Amino acid sequence: MTVYVMAASSFIILLAHGSSDPHWVQPFLELEQIIRQQEPAAAVAFMELAEPSLETLIARASAEGYQQFSVLPLFFAAGRHLRQDVPRQIQRLETQFQVSISLLPPVGEHPLLTQAIVHIAKDLLQGQP
Amino acid sequence: MTVYVMAASSFIILLAHGSSDPHWVQPFLELEQIIRQQEPAAAVAFMELAEPSLETLIARASAEGYQQFSVLPLFFAAGRHLRQDVPRQIQRLETQFQVSISLLPPVGEHPLLTQAIVHIAKDLLQGQP
Repeated sequence: MTVYVMAASSFIILLAHGSSDPHWVQPFLELEQIIRQQEPAAAVAFMELAEPSLETLIARASAEGYQQFSVLPLFFAAGRHLRQDVPRQIQRLETQFQVSISLLPPVGEHPLLTQAIVHIAKDLLQGQP
Repeated sequence: MTVYVMAASSFIILLAHGSSDPHWVQPFLELEQIIRQQEPAAAVAFMELAEPSLETLIARASAEGYQQFSVLPLFFAAGRHLRQDVPRQIQRLETQFQVSISLLPPVGEHPLLTQAIVHIAKDLLQGQP
C-alpha cells in the first residue's frame, strides 16, 4: 500500500536559521525546488523568523503519513542553536506529533561541503592575477 | 621580485559570521587549514564575536604586502549583514589600510555549493529505508 510505504519512509528537512528578510529566504526556496524535483520527500524549514517553521512542516508531513524525519541543518557549524535550542524543539515535536526526528550534524561539517568551498576558493584565487 | 608578486596577487578571505562559542568556530579553523595547504593566500575571518576579525586579518595581510582582497562570505544567503554591515566595514577598511577589497556573493549562492547540498540530501534519503 502506498500509504504504508510513505509512512515507513523518511522525510528530510533542510533546516535553515531563518530571517524576517525576504531576500535572505530566497536562496533556500530555490534550493528546495531543486531538491524536490529529485526527492519529493524533502523540504526546507526555518528555525525562527520565517515560515514554514519546523513545527508547521512536521505537522503537514505527518498528516501526509510521514513518521520518520531527518533534520539536516543548513548551518556551517554547531553553536548554541544546534546544541540546545533545536534539540529541545525536536523533543517537543516528537511528543506532539508522535514521530521520530533525528538531528544530523550541520551540513557545513560534511566533507562534500568542505570540498565544495575549497574548490570555490581555489577557483577564485586562480581566476585572479 | 617576490614582494611585487605578493603585492599584485589577491588574498582571499573566507568571512564567517562569528560566535563567542569555541565549538562553533572550530570547523572554520579546520576549513582554513585545508585551504591554506593548497593556497597560502587565504584565511578565515569573523564578522563579529571571534578573532581574527576582518580588520585584524587585513592589517596583517596588508603588512605582508597584499593590496587586493576578495571576501567570500561563508553564509548561505545575503541578509542585512552582507548587504549593509559588511559593505560598510569594507569601505572603512579600504580607506584605513589603502587596499582594495571586493565582496563576493555568499558561498551559499554558488552553484557548486548548491550541488553539494543536493548531493548530501539525496545520499541521506537513499541511505535510509
